[in-house]
Amino acid sequence: MANRVLIVNGPNLNMLGSREPEIYGKETLADLQALCEKTAKTLGISVDFRQSNTEGELVGWIQEAGKAHQGILINAAAYTHTSVAIMDALLSVSVPIIEVHLSNIFKREEFRHHSYVSPAAKGVICGLGAHGYVLALEAMAKLLEPR
Amino acid sequence: MANRVLIVNGPNLNMLGSREPEIYGKETLADLQALCEKTAKTLGISVDFRQSNTEGELVGWIQEAGKAHQGILINAAAYTHTSVAIMDALLSVSVPIIEVHLSNIFKREEFRHHSYVSPAAKGVICGLGAHGYVLALEAMAKLLEPR
Amino acid sequence: MANRVLIVNGPNLNMLGSREPEIYGKETLADLQALCEKTAKTLGISVDFRQSNTEGELVGWIQEAGKAHQGILINAAAYTHTSVAIMDALLSVSVPIIEVHLSNIFKREEFRHHSYVSPAAKGVICGLGAHGYVLALEAMAKLLEPR
Amino acid sequence: MANRVLIVNGPNLNMLGSREPEIYGKETLADLQALCEKTAKTLGISVDFRQSNTEGELVGWIQEAGKAHQGILINAAAYTHTSVAIMDALLSVSVPIIEVHLSNIFKREEFRHHSYVSPAAKGVICGLGAHGYVLALEAMAKLLEPR
Amino acid sequence: MANRVLIVNGPNLNMLGSREPEIYGKETLADLQALCEKTAKTLGISVDFRQSNTEGELVGWIQEAGKAHQGILINAAAYTHTSVAIMDALLSVSVPIIEVHLSNIFKREEFRHHSYVSPAAKGVICGLGAHGYVLALEAMAKLLEPR
Amino acid sequence: MANRVLIVNGPNLNMLGSREPEIYGKETLADLQALCEKTAKTLGISVDFRQSNTEGELVGWIQEAGKAHQGILINAAAYTHTSVAIMDALLSVSVPIIEVHLSNIFKREEFRHHSYVSPAAKGVICGLGAHGYVLALEAMAKLLEPR
Amino acid sequence: MANRVLIVNGPNLNMLGSREPEIYGKETLADLQALCEKTAKTLGISVDFRQSNTEGELVGWIQEAGKAHQGILINAAAYTHTSVAIMDALLSVSVPIIEVHLSNIFKREEFRHHSYVSPAAKGVICGLGAHGYVLALEAMAKLLEPR
Amino acid sequence: MANRVLIVNGPNLNMLGSREPEIYGKETLADLQALCEKTAKTLGISVDFRQSNTEGELVGWIQEAGKAHQGILINAAAYTHTSVAIMDALLSVSVPIIEVHLSNIFKREEFRHHSYVSPAAKGVICGLGAHGYVLALEAMAKLLEPR
Amino acid sequence: MANRVLIVNGPNLNMLGSREPEIYGKETLADLQALCEKTAKTLGISVDFRQSNTEGELVGWIQEAGKAHQGILINAAAYTHTSVAIMDALLSVSVPIIEVHLSNIFKREEFRHHSYVSPAAKGVICGLGAHGYVLALEAMAKLLEPR
Amino acid sequence: MANRVLIVNGPNLNMLGSREPEIYGKETLADLQALCEKTAKTLGISVDFRQSNTEGELVGWIQEAGKAHQGILINAAAYTHTSVAIMDALLSVSVPIIEVHLSNIFKREEFRHHSYVSPAAKGVICGLGAHGYVLALEAMAKLLEPR
Amino acid sequence: MANRVLIVNGPNLNMLGSREPEIYGKETLADLQALCEKTAKTLGISVDFRQSNTEGELVGWIQEAGKAHQGILINAAAYTHTSVAIMDALLSVSVPIIEVHLSNIFKREEFRHHSYVSPAAKGVICGLGAHGYVLALEAMAKLLEPR
Amino acid sequence: MANRVLIVNGPNLNMLGSREPEIYGKETLADLQALCEKTAKTLGISVDFRQSNTEGELVGWIQEAGKAHQGILINAAAYTHTSVAIMDALLSVSVPIIEVHLSNIFKREEFRHHSYVSPAAKGVICGLGAHGYVLALEAMAKLLEPR
Repeated sequence: MANRVLIVNGPNLNMLGSREPEIYGKETLADLQALCEKTAKTLGISVDFRQSNTEGELVGWIQEAGKAHQGILINAAAYTHTSVAIMDALLSVSVPIIEVHLSNIFKREEFRHHSYVSPAAKGVICGLGAHGYVLALEAMAKLLEPR
Repeated sequence: MANRVLIVNGPNLNMLGSREPEIYGKETLADLQALCEKTAKTLGISVDFRQSNTEGELVGWIQEAGKAHQGILINAAAYTHTSVAIMDALLSVSVPIIEVHLSNIFKREEFRHHSYVSPAAKGVICGLGAHGYVLALEAMAKLLEPR
Repeated sequence: MANRVLIVNGPNLNMLGSREPEIYGKETLADLQALCEKTAKTLGISVDFRQSNTEGELVGWIQEAGKAHQGILINAAAYTHTSVAIMDALLSVSVPIIEVHLSNIFKREEFRHHSYVSPAAKGVICGLGAHGYVLALEAMAKLLEPR
Repeated sequence: MANRVLIVNGPNLNMLGSREPEIYGKETLADLQALCEKTAKTLGISVDFRQSNTEGELVGWIQEAGKAHQGILINAAAYTHTSVAIMDALLSVSVPIIEVHLSNIFKREEFRHHSYVSPAAKGVICGLGAHGYVLALEAMAKLLEPR
Repeated sequence: MANRVLIVNGPNLNMLGSREPEIYGKETLADLQALCEKTAKTLGISVDFRQSNTEGELVGWIQEAGKAHQGILINAAAYTHTSVAIMDALLSVSVPIIEVHLSNIFKREEFRHHSYVSPAAKGVICGLGAHGYVLALEAMAKLLEPR
Repeated sequence: MANRVLIVNGPNLNMLGSREPEIYGKETLADLQALCEKTAKTLGISVDFRQSNTEGELVGWIQEAGKAHQGILINAAAYTHTSVAIMDALLSVSVPIIEVHLSNIFKREEFRHHSYVSPAAKGVICGLGAHGYVLALEAMAKLLEPR
Repeated sequence: MANRVLIVNGPNLNMLGSREPEIYGKETLADLQALCEKTAKTLGISVDFRQSNTEGELVGWIQEAGKAHQGILINAAAYTHTSVAIMDALLSVSVPIIEVHLSNIFKREEFRHHSYVSPAAKGVICGLGAHGYVLALEAMAKLLEPR
Repeated sequence: MANRVLIVNGPNLNMLGSREPEIYGKETLADLQALCEKTAKTLGISVDFRQSNTEGELVGWIQEAGKAHQGILINAAAYTHTSVAIMDALLSVSVPIIEVHLSNIFKREEFRHHSYVSPAAKGVICGLGAHGYVLALEAMAKLLEPR
Repeated sequence: MANRVLIVNGPNLNMLGSREPEIYGKETLADLQALCEKTAKTLGISVDFRQSNTEGELVGWIQEAGKAHQGILINAAAYTHTSVAIMDALLSVSVPIIEVHLSNIFKREEFRHHSYVSPAAKGVICGLGAHGYVLALEAMAKLLEPR
Repeated sequence: MANRVLIVNGPNLNMLGSREPEIYGKETLADLQALCEKTAKTLGISVDFRQSNTEGELVGWIQEAGKAHQGILINAAAYTHTSVAIMDALLSVSVPIIEVHLSNIFKREEFRHHSYVSPAAKGVICGLGAHGYVLALEAMAKLLEPR
Repeated sequence: MANRVLIVNGPNLNMLGSREPEIYGKETLADLQALCEKTAKTLGISVDFRQSNTEGELVGWIQEAGKAHQGILINAAAYTHTSVAIMDALLSVSVPIIEVHLSNIFKREEFRHHSYVSPAAKGVICGLGAHGYVLALEAMAKLLEPR
Repeated sequence: MANRVLIVNGPNLNMLGSREPEIYGKETLADLQALCEKTAKTLGISVDFRQSNTEGELVGWIQEAGKAHQGILINAAAYTHTSVAIMDALLSVSVPIIEVHLSNIFKREEFRHHSYVSPAAKGVICGLGAHGYVLALEAMAKLLEPR
């Protein structure tokens, strides 16, 4: 059976397209989901694409991913910088994790330079917009390849 | 049609009246809502008064306010000091925002002196108790006036 | 009527047993609940054992505890280090509060050394695993004794 | 006899209208004074509107206000961030004090985020331009009301 | 032979009862010793209860405990916050160590929030007064149980 | 001719007696001056007792003291913590300088623990109320004694 | 003519394969170069792959890249954390820049968490080993596509 | 008409010649004024040379300079490091500003390394003694040249 | 019976006279004791003059002073900056406490600027050499006067 | 023989004219060299104008300057903020040193506010563009004048 | 007569051999003493080898060394990082001082990186185990050589 | 074959003898080399003594040492405090490393107290001048001894 990857999107990513387009681009979350699904197909994997504004719901999805998915791709958005709970959820599962950000967080406010997700992730991709999700899926596919 | 202002109240404000009355006063949240509605009427605007203990729910309300309201009045309570998610939600909408606090946060613990809401708001009113909401509504009415 | 103690468990504690067992041990949350209930019986009190990943839900339970319970035993897990909202909820109730942690948080990452719960609690017990809950319940029973 | 409120304006506020109008607006100090006097009349109080660039003179006015006025409305401008002397003067009088700023100081340089005035004030209003003075006068009138 | 636990009490604990009773309670050190001895008996262990104001003497006792005792219960009082020597002594022995404090050190001055003892201890109990010693002895008995 | 000592009093000391009497005592500045003059007489020296709220005026007096006085006794009050200008003035004169404070500044807010005056002074006396001025004059008399 | 991308490798990357293989993997720099050249071919671009231990040489290569290349892919290794000179060189050219790291720098020592390269780059990819270079080349190809 | 430059000298500069000559040299303020006037003549400009120990007076002079002068040369002395009011005054005028210091402030105490004047100035000259004023006047003349 | 004051001298004060005489002067500890005894006689009080290099011994003396003396004069020397144990001992007694230092600690290394003794003392005298002890005794006599 | 001054230019200054012209102006390094040579002629001195991107080469030039030149004018560019090696080289020579920067480094990023060169230099000139070099040469000529 | 060197060993060094042997090695303190005595013989000097857990005792030994010994070799162990009293004792004697540590303190916890002994010592040797004492004795012999 | 030790000397050490002799002594680098070669002979090892001002060259030498030498003795001079590249080079080789400094870096400026070399070295010797190299060679010989 094909590997299934959970794609977790954090708060305000449902606003993509209308929210600060000079930072996040004009694509909507639906566009992003379509792009991920198309990419997954090419890679022979499947994706489970979700978004929530609630930290606890994100925590729950990550916990379950440990059982139902083979990898996690996470853009925790604002919670990246404040959530020890999400960090702990990621540390509690054993599948590979890749962190993605649409914008280059190191060009923004000081408080966005620190991530609680990074120490729990295999790798980080940021600043490459929607294409960053594509690259992250490729990286995940590579990590899930039989060696 | 009259301008409609979303009044967002953060965690524990539902405890008003019983919670540390020496800091927050004896008025309940219902009293505060009644005061806001009465004031709004006088100003020729309407208000949509809400409270939640959940960060994600507050984020959702703010996002919608961008569409259904002409302004936001927010007392994010404890989340004021910890929520980048609420800050990002406020930055994603384009209506004017006024921050209110019942107590003077600068007289309290060090960690209450920093607000993630302030940089996203037009102005801040704090320490003036329930009357601070009345003043904030007046300020909002002024900001929404045709120039 | 017997005193009733609310036992509040924070995010990821539902993963007990599978999550980083070298830190948190092999017992599940159900085991922990059974242990607490058995201990409570011996002490002549009853317990109301809950877990949530959502900060706002935890806040709500604490608020209610002020009315329906005689004491709170709290392991806020990751929210210990980030939640002013939980701190404020604890400050808004007047029953005694005891903080518990399974692991010794002072042996772990720097950011786990600070607790927003401690200043609102009567006492703290950490590093003693599941037995820490037993001790906390004994302490609570002692605090609730008529003097 | 009507309550009399001292309105203290700090350094460079005499430059209003010409100084960085994108931050402080186009109104002059005279406009602001007129607005305050008009507002005061409506509220049944009187105002004593002053400005000085000298810290010591501001200190002196505040000290006297303890005897000759029933309240102080203060925009200490640059001295907000550096003057312990003004803080001490405010602490030495017992009438209510409200702090005002034309701009939202929390959107500006880091060193403008800290105020020595706030811990000595009842409340703070900032970012609402000249209208902030009107609101502060209303708040003062409310505070001075017989209860 | 019964397990023997060294109970180490640091500086000024000989002043218990007369020293700041609003923080430390009215019980004297002798009362505390009696309580510990009574508790130990119930638990089938014995205790060796000592107090010193001198850091070097405390260091010496801890070093010996490695040979003559099966566990250490330590309230290092003021040295908790300043003594690397006590930390090193604790690290040099291999018996289990439990840290106790009568008061909740996290409600006191900032410099009392850091402990050099905690990273060397199995667990920490604080804020529960003399009863904290009872609980610590129970925890120790549990740790020393044959598994 | 008798040695003449300049006694410099900083901002708000003219409020002595009415200002926060629980910190500064009930004596007025006039009482303090009388006490200093009486003490000086006993010591065979004379004093020049002044107070100002203006930093620049204090700087000017200190500069002149280098020429017309044999010593400086200074209570810079709030400027103690903020004035490099007063520090530089003190460094520019070569007569002995003694710093005095009525209250124990180390028992107060953190920002009152640092003094720009101390590194320019021979010695410091604080927390001993009006009697601290008497002691400082004795110390000055001793320093001015022919050796 | 095909787009040509400069791939800049910083100090000690010539040690790849023998240097701390548990962090950097077993592939040598030559392997990495071969992988990049193969990938480039597939993408229809060409690469210019270089390594130096000398900050000044790296600065020089970056400066020239502004003229002879259409993009820069940089793994500045140790200089990432210390070189303002490389940052300034990157800021002086106008072609797109992507930062790569073999290891996840956020899982390592604190001083490796800050990068002078990131604020000058379009995006960052780290922790994905040699495959990170492949992904960076894909990202670059995408950025250089005619739109 | 010739360009007129305001030369503003801060606190204690009236002590030049007698104050710490090993730092500030043996020249008096009058010598410095003469040197500036002589230099100005050569450059075809005129100077308005002033000194004050009072922050507010310096603020006032700077404000007026916006109207009556074509440039400001400022040595704010001790106020360099503490005065936001002078910074704001400089920001409120639109003529070019050059900051001068007689000594090299970066060789002195840590607190003299930060300047509130520098961010408001075109350029800074320090450590070159009285000759620094000559150079600053030349720089000003250059800036005021018709281009 | 005459009031009896404990004079506590900390580590290395037994080296007075030979230790860094440019900082501490040429008088020996015996000279200092003689001076204190002579002064005490004049004031109608008696002194109990002691010195120890051991923190624990100093703690013990302070504890006893609560019973056998009417006041404590303390120069904790190096322990001033490191001993929470001495601070706690001072807080455990209720007689008045005056802190003395021979040198002006604010002119020395940064780490000597903080004192754990000051917050527990009534007042502080430093930088006035042996005469500082005389002044402290006078202050103590004054504090012990019947009012 | 005429005095010879070494002019040392650090990394990326060879990019002048094309690199961020809004910060550094449109003049090239060759223009700057020509300006310095022309100015030197007028002053009766000669200059040796060099640029390097390599820290070690800059160090070597400075070391030699101690033998072959009578003064050093240095714009260390990015190495200003990071090079202790250049600082040490400057400290190892005994000729006068003047630091120059084209831009006002105090208006830029925080990390550009600190200079390792300043403590080793006689004086600093910054923010005055190419003309700053002219002024620095004049200052150097003045310093090298026979007195 | 042969030079005599005091070798001072701080707290817990009496535990050598049994305490954390992976850090401190397997040799006991007696072994270390034997090694030092043997080395001293070879060098034509004698040693006085001591160990104490009590800060005050160490202070006393150092003070006496000023009279009875020609040099001090000190491994202050844990007190290295906390004892200003030992630093002051070392500063009070005029014989040469060499600091030794068995382990490389810079590879250990952050708080072990700072030493109060180093600024009072001629030189420091660390990380070379027992052999470090041999080297330190050689260095001392060299320092004590007639020049 | 005899063991061969690479002795790496960093920037400005070629200036020994003329550079700040009060800190570094009067011996030249050639004297130091001769001393090392003489010492090595006695120890039955050989040395390869080098110096460079360029970080990249030092990095290269260290990398090669992994192959051609049995140990590294390094005085990285100024790069000690700034070079992560040298640290990484040292971490990439597996021969023993000893760090040496001529001066006691802990008696100098704050920024010289931190070393990037120490965590990669076996041990550190500093403050003992040229003799420190001799001791380091002895230590190295000891480390290279067959056990």
